[in-house]
Amino acid sequence: MVEQNFSFDILHQDKTTRARIGKITTPHGAIETPNFIFCGTKAAMKACAADTLRDLGVDIILSNTYHLLIQPGSQLVQKMGGLHNFMQWHGPMLTDSGGYQIFAMGHGSISAEIKRKNIPGRRKTLSKITEEGAHFHSYMDGRQIFLTPESSIQIQRELGADLIVMLDECTPFHVDKDYTARSMHMTHRWGDRCIAEFNRIDDGRQQLYGIVQGGVYQDLRRIAAEYTASRPFFGTAIGGCLGDTKDSVIEIASWAMEYVAPDRPVHLLGIGGIEEIIRGAALGIDTFDCVSPTRMARHGWALAPFEPMGRVNIRNARFREDRSPLDETLGNAASGAYSKAYLHHLFKADEILGLQLLTQHNIAVMVRLMADVRAAIRAGDMAGLAARYGVTL
Amino acid sequence: MVEQNFSFDILHQDKTTRARIGKITTPHGAIETPNFIFCGTKAAMKACAADTLRDLGVDIILSNTYHLLIQPGSQLVQKMGGLHNFMQWHGPMLTDSGGYQIFAMGHGSISAEIKRKNIPGRRKTLSKITEEGAHFHSYMDGRQIFLTPESSIQIQRELGADLIVMLDECTPFHVDKDYTARSMHMTHRWGDRCIAEFNRIDDGRQQLYGIVQGGVYQDLRRIAAEYTASRPFFGTAIGGCLGDTKDSVIEIASWAMEYVAPDRPVHLLGIGGIEEIIRGAALGIDTFDCVSPTRMARHGWALAPFEPMGRVNIRNARFREDRSPLDETLGNAASGAYSKAYLHHLFKADEILGLQLLTQHNIAVMVRLMADVRAAIRAGDMAGLAARYGVTL
Repeated sequence: MVEQNFSFDILHQDKTTRARIGKITTPHGAIETPNFIFCGTKAAMKACAADTLRDLGVDIILSNTYHLLIQPGSQLVQKMGGLHNFMQWHGPMLTDSGGYQIFAMGHGSISAEIKRKNIPGRRKTLSKITEEGAHFHSYMDGRQIFLTPESSIQIQRELGADLIVMLDECTPFHVDKDYTARSMHMTHRWGDRCIAEFNRIDDGRQQLYGIVQGGVYQDLRRIAAEYTASRPFFGTAIGGCLGDTKDSVIEIASWAMEYVAPDRPVHLLGIGGIEEIIRGAALGIDTFDCVSPTRMARHGWALAPFEPMGRVNIRNARFREDRSPLDETLGNAASGAYSKAYLHHLFKADEILGLQLLTQHNIAVMVRLMADVRAAIRAGDMAGLAARYGVTL
Repeated sequence: MVEQNFSFDILHQDKTTRARIGKITTPHGAIETPNFIFCGTKAAMKACAADTLRDLGVDIILSNTYHLLIQPGSQLVQKMGGLHNFMQWHGPMLTDSGGYQIFAMGHGSISAEIKRKNIPGRRKTLSKITEEGAHFHSYMDGRQIFLTPESSIQIQRELGADLIVMLDECTPFHVDKDYTARSMHMTHRWGDRCIAEFNRIDDGRQQLYGIVQGGVYQDLRRIAAEYTASRPFFGTAIGGCLGDTKDSVIEIASWAMEYVAPDRPVHLLGIGGIEEIIRGAALGIDTFDCVSPTRMARHGWALAPFEPMGRVNIRNARFREDRSPLDETLGNAASGAYSKAYLHHLFKADEILGLQLLTQHNIAVMVRLMADVRAAIRAGDMAGLAARYGVTL
């Protein structure tokens, strides 16, 4: 008898919105949803150790297949006992397919951080996309890499996260509807190949998410959502281009949400704004991820959801003599024990400790946000939650 | 009645060496000696929060008057409730006088780290030394600063550490005996001015250390040690040039140790090598400080006192697939939970977390070293300790 390692249970359905309380069970524990998946890109949360994440109340993290494939390599991670053991995170974990970075970085619109570290200028790393897969080269050493649906699944098996994601083509923002449609259909063929490869090597320790592509086109989003619902994916991820405003993100996600499988967990890829999370939860989205809370911290931005701007930059001179902490109600030292004046000093003095403390604070803000979302759903008060966070549902 | 805030008690005297177990009591708690004072240069341990220091068993830290004077300024620290409150370190703390950095940085032999961050090339920041004090300019903004014995005491009062240090002239390595002698005598006059200023503003919350200068000259070291013993300092610090080998450090310190006040705590400034600490403890030295354990960590060096070299560089390719932790007997996650392969990966991937974890490991090694030194003194087995650490007493 095979143990039931995975499940998704809907514990409570909101009456006034499509928000819901869910529970995703994995071999590394269960999480309640809606929840936020914190990004530990290269098998490490930047400036925050795994035990600190646990202390801050983090439930689930992700790591990026693309980065790990390039450094240190998935086979090394496997030899070291898999991602959980390698990075000493013993809770639920997700890896993405590598698709997003191949395409986002490949077209030259690479994130500022990676640019600054590794690439002089905006070199294209993507060489060619064919029906078979994607050819690109490593930003570390130029080495040619060929990623296929099958190899993405194999690599994610080696990495060993609980939840893994099918390979998709993530179309760039400027492409037209014809290209988007052709790409989406290829992504669906890739999805079927991912399922076949997943089933071939399945050992009961992972589950697979499908991805809804279709860009900014309502009819394509429907086709893509129906595709994922028609296949035996464990979960559904909404990816690709969601427009460039908060409203467009929510609108496009809502198109997909009408047709995804309602009994599976839904993840909205790469979205981490407080407004989008609250409005997304009201659509029935179960998990979110984004580097922004921790990346903003490293640039001096402390999340402050109840301030007019939603954040403050601790480098601002007005904090020079501010004896108050960021938010002592958050119950952690970074938010409650240190004065803003001290955090300001750490950033002005280029002390690494400043990055650490602000990272912890921003994580704590996101953990509280998700707990607030779940409490509001349970209380049937999504409207009250939205009002408190200054969001219009 | 004034409470007895400070004391130094010798709890145990070794029979075969001059090593001793002491107890320094301050308003922020008591520490047993021999002990190591970890360097939190700019009111921050680099890459390590104050509560982590406590968890690692750190008893006492220091902060540097020179750096704090320049940024954020001692008056700001005072407004924020003093260093303990500012940085949330609630145990014993020491500040130095600012002298070392004025002279070490002033002559252009500035530490690599500060150079890299703040100064293009090796600019001299020291303008002039007179009987009155030292004129130098800020490495931040070029602003002229005039530090006198009196202002050094006032600034350290504003910073509010428990243990403070008299201002000295720290002579550069190339000066001759005549200059060293003249400088030493001026340092003694500065010491008397520091005592006068200390007494004028004493509020019972700090105690003052004298400094033994005298360079590499045995007769000058005697004069300087006798000077400190003849004045009502709480403790004695041995500073200045101690030659350029481990043997010269110990030899020159031993000249001073013959004449320092035997009933006061003795601190050896800026020395943190394992060999020098063990041999220094055997001379009766009570405390040590050095940036090296934490600085080495940031450069990838893990202290490994029982390995042939005494340290290993985690960037070395031989650790790429090494599943073993650095040292699980140390009882902290950084040393025991993570594999060397993971730490190697973090450094190769330029992850801040690598600096954090190696810093914690090196701190733990130093904490254990000092506990081992105290245990060996209590057991009358300094020879066994030295043998275990590969040191010849």
